[in-house]
Amino acid sequence: MKKQYRDDSLALHTDLYELNMAHTYFKDHIHKRRSVFEAYFRRMPFESGYAVFAGLERVIDFIANFRFSETDLDYLYEELHYEAEFIDYLKQVRFSGNVRSVVEGEMIFANEPILQIDAPLAEAQLIETPLLNILNFHPLIATKASRIRLAAGEDNLYEHTGTNQLMEFGSRRAHEMDAAFYGARAAYIGGFDATSNVRAGKVFGIPVSGTHAHALVQVYRDEYSAFKKYAESHRNCIFLVDTYNTLKSGIPNAIKVAKEMGDRINFIGIRLDSGRLPYLSQEARKMLDEAGYHDVKIFASNDLDEYSILDLKAQGAKIDGWGVGTKLMTSFDQPALGAVYKLVSIEDDYGNMVDTIKLSENPEKISTPGLKEVYRIVNQVNHKWEGDYITMQDEVPNEEQHLKMFHPIHTHVSKFVTNFNARKIHQPIFAQGKLVYEQPTIEEMRAYCLQNLKHLWDDYKVITKSNEDVFRPTEYPVDLSTSCWDNKMQNIEETRSKLLSDTVLV
Amino acid sequence: MKKQYRDDSLALHTDLYELNMAHTYFKDHIHKRRSVFEAYFRRMPFESGYAVFAGLERVIDFIANFRFSETDLDYLYEELHYEAEFIDYLKQVRFSGNVRSVVEGEMIFANEPILQIDAPLAEAQLIETPLLNILNFHPLIATKASRIRLAAGEDNLYEHTGTNQLMEFGSRRAHEMDAAFYGARAAYIGGFDATSNVRAGKVFGIPVSGTHAHALVQVYRDEYSAFKKYAESHRNCIFLVDTYNTLKSGIPNAIKVAKEMGDRINFIGIRLDSGRLPYLSQEARKMLDEAGYHDVKIFASNDLDEYSILDLKAQGAKIDGWGVGTKLMTSFDQPALGAVYKLVSIEDDYGNMVDTIKLSENPEKISTPGLKEVYRIVNQVNHKWEGDYITMQDEVPNEEQHLKMFHPIHTHVSKFVTNFNARKIHQPIFAQGKLVYEQPTIEEMRAYCLQNLKHLWDDYKVITKSNEDVFRPTEYPVDLSTSCWDNKMQNIEETRSKLLSDTVLV
Repeated sequence: MKKQYRDDSLALHTDLYELNMAHTYFKDHIHKRRSVFEAYFRRMPFESGYAVFAGLERVIDFIANFRFSETDLDYLYEELHYEAEFIDYLKQVRFSGNVRSVVEGEMIFANEPILQIDAPLAEAQLIETPLLNILNFHPLIATKASRIRLAAGEDNLYEHTGTNQLMEFGSRRAHEMDAAFYGARAAYIGGFDATSNVRAGKVFGIPVSGTHAHALVQVYRDEYSAFKKYAESHRNCIFLVDTYNTLKSGIPNAIKVAKEMGDRINFIGIRLDSGRLPYLSQEARKMLDEAGYHDVKIFASNDLDEYSILDLKAQGAKIDGWGVGTKLMTSFDQPALGAVYKLVSIEDDYGNMVDTIKLSENPEKISTPGLKEVYRIVNQVNHKWEGDYITMQDEVPNEEQHLKMFHPIHTHVSKFVTNFNARKIHQPIFAQGKLVYEQPTIEEMRAYCLQNLKHLWDDYKVITKSNEDVFRPTEYPVDLSTSCWDNKMQNIEETRSKLLSDTVLV
Repeated sequence: MKKQYRDDSLALHTDLYELNMAHTYFKDHIHKRRSVFEAYFRRMPFESGYAVFAGLERVIDFIANFRFSETDLDYLYEELHYEAEFIDYLKQVRFSGNVRSVVEGEMIFANEPILQIDAPLAEAQLIETPLLNILNFHPLIATKASRIRLAAGEDNLYEHTGTNQLMEFGSRRAHEMDAAFYGARAAYIGGFDATSNVRAGKVFGIPVSGTHAHALVQVYRDEYSAFKKYAESHRNCIFLVDTYNTLKSGIPNAIKVAKEMGDRINFIGIRLDSGRLPYLSQEARKMLDEAGYHDVKIFASNDLDEYSILDLKAQGAKIDGWGVGTKLMTSFDQPALGAVYKLVSIEDDYGNMVDTIKLSENPEKISTPGLKEVYRIVNQVNHKWEGDYITMQDEVPNEEQHLKMFHPIHTHVSKFVTNFNARKIHQPIFAQGKLVYEQPTIEEMRAYCLQNLKHLWDDYKVITKSNEDVFRPTEYPVDLSTSCWDNKMQNIEETRSKLLSDTVLV
């Protein structure tokens, strides 16, 4: 059985090696040196043309409350045997650095920093694991949700009712409770209309949705009784019609109850949860229309995702709203984003910031060193985004002239951009440990995300399972400035030659 | 920004429809009727020949603490507009029923109840979502962990040191914090030796593991300095040797530092995190052996899972321990178990328990009605398991005679078992709302799981990516008794004929 502790903190929610490294820095008296880490991911999730950022609120909560509890410290001292001086340091440590981040609902792309931590070395190291734990999950769900939003249709993006409704139903399949709870929030930011998770509704202020399950029908044994009892106790009714037989029993009984109840209920719709949805939904539409229920909606659920929704639409299914669970909330087709957290700059013995790099035989795993800025290059004529442009921190992309953007891997591919506006994608969140960012409402985050979709060329918003390049989404440019590229090359060169000269003969 | 509530409970961590159904039952005065629900999954995860149960402690904590908080009730009343009488009911509701469950570390199989809830209807309904949220995650991770344990080797199953060590490194990639925390626990029960998650170590009493990351080397700019500083501040050293160049720089520097430090450190090992592991590990082994470090271990990490571990072993990699992260903790190749919760029996108007069934065009989705028991049929000669046997609750599998077990889908396939012992796989956990189960230690759960592996024929423990039936794991028999089968058929027949006679003409 688990041990009962009188207190617990998320500061201990970290990999052991972070504490060990912090301990080495502490013993070597370099734990307060200024260091800059960047969080980013290397490949687009779902091979998507864009991704959606979410999770900043959770990051803020974590950092603002970062402190080790008394029993955390007891455990570290008594069971892991860290020395008393280090425990004293941990006892008083708070996050005192700067954080810059993209905001929730912002579009993000591979190989650009999402979050930059500029903080005393040990602090930046200690928060790595929990930050990655957050950053590897929320954007994955928000991105998946946004793709499902695209598939369901943008017709009605700014309404919570009407057609193309998207309801998140995945709590039972999410990876434990935090994933269900925060996943509901990320899905909403990504463009869903509601969640079934009541706690998420309460805490985040998200609309909640849901009526009844098969169990209700089983309890009353027949659909007529079940729908009738439900209608007698709820004004808004969506009847689940597939417990026994959708067309012979479910829908006729739903209509029968609706007629009997008349104005005493809002007969909002029926839900189909199994079977051949194109056929069933077409038949259902006919039956509802014939009964005079032209405005009554047809909802579908059952292992849906962006691909199955597009398929169903292509097959002529008459579905007005979608309940999406497992495939969204477990990020089924790619359950890991692979976000990493890399040191790009550190203070040296003389107080100067020096670049750091991680080499690899795999070019995509070589980090980009130095203090950097990321600009979104916005076409001033059509307001579309031309790409993102990573510069060294002291560069100012000249807004008057041509901007040369080149492909970071295939450097012979380049383009000139004119008449653009360069917008920094990061906002200051913490400054010297103080929260300086005022968070928008979740409605604003969601609206921002939906608005951002309009700035993306359609080529980046393609949803397809095709393997043919011409049908797949175009790769959004995330380019390095010439200075940034030259600096990276120089760092690689220097590190490699130092390595050669240092080679140890055993 | 999220709303600040002074209290919060997990009782609200439920799908809205559970509350709506409970409301209907309440209004109809049937909310206290006895009902029996079963949780089970329909297909083996990872197409595995067996699965491992975990998560009961979390279920117990949830049920024992099941109550709505004051602000939960305010939210339900003020924002979701449930009526005052129902809120009063929710205010005082606690779980007052019975729970029977398999225990943690038990092997489980598709289509047999894992957990049985026998409780007043509304209570059983309200806890569905959180129970499934737990039951869909913990067994997935424990099963994956057990498969990785099989791949790594059983040589050393009862030791936490030595070869074939398995370390769980997946916190950063797990789906938010609960998944990292509880996933670490489930992995340990499934046979891992340690976790990197310090909070899981503290709370669950799991061994923790980890030394340093690439960041340490980047901070000190060269491996010699980084390893030296680490060695000067930690007695147990495992050096990560692939920041720049494993063979030319990483390993030689690790050996150099180890020689300089001599007895002042335990040079436990090196860790490889990239590159061609068979070649690198063989070269590393040679270099370490030549330097006299025959007992120094080689650890590997980098997107490992059961398949890559088997591959690496087949390719002759010289690896003594494995750090497994993403693929385990996100259950990468199958992130959802698909566990469901179905009503199988309910009290009728006269106080009698009656069976309930959910029909479907898909035979595997038809539920098995009635109050049932699950027996594990243990061969008394070799102690191997012959299969699981689902009976009606009043049946007693005769331990003296032949037992006829037939395939639940292909009913013409059957076998006779003799000389067996039939063991009930469920334990009473709650009785009339009181916890009656004394939980073993996590060490005992882990040992039980490892012990259980020995009762499974090797045919069920095959780990392969082959699609050829003859190379794949054999399907473990989960059979219905004749009475149970006949009862299911009778229920299907009755429900179908009732449906026919009830057909509504619209």
